[in-house]
Amino acid sequence: MYKVKVYVTLRESVLDPQGSAVKGSLHRLNYNEVKDVRIGKYMELTIDEAVSDIDQTVREICEKLLANTVIEDYRYEVEEVVAL
Amino acid sequence: MYKVKVYVTLRESVLDPQGSAVKGSLHRLNYNEVKDVRIGKYMELTIDEAVSDIDQTVREICEKLLANTVIEDYRYEVEEVVAL
Repeated sequence: MYKVKVYVTLRESVLDPQGSAVKGSLHRLNYNEVKDVRIGKYMELTIDEAVSDIDQTVREICEKLLANTVIEDYRYEVEEVVAL
Repeated sequence: MYKVKVYVTLRESVLDPQGSAVKGSLHRLNYNEVKDVRIGKYMELTIDEAVSDIDQTVREICEKLLANTVIEDYRYEVEEVVAL
């Protein structure tokens, strides 16, 4: 089995209203040291080792479904897990 | 400045309907090798170094606002960034 961790983040140049809202809430809670907040998505996929090319598969999945590459960047880590 | 990366995930025992929906979509796209999908949140905070205790601050922020500790777990990484 492969355990794949995918991180999807908004591109730097794209406004992040959700992050701004969280920053506003933190300031109201008196955490004024927080200067910026950016919100992204984190996904854990469990993929069968029968897959032919794990890197290519993950890249396809990210580009077709998990990330909107117009406004988002993604990165991923693949970990091989030995089934017990 | 500190750059803090926060990962919030649903606890193992909690059902993840959003993950199930993504898994269903991947199967419809013929990625049948994908056995499980869990969706979480990823946040990047930029925090001023004037903060007295960075670990305690991040833990407080997570427990008060970013994670619902009844159903979610969180972990974080702190990175010190030298301002130019």
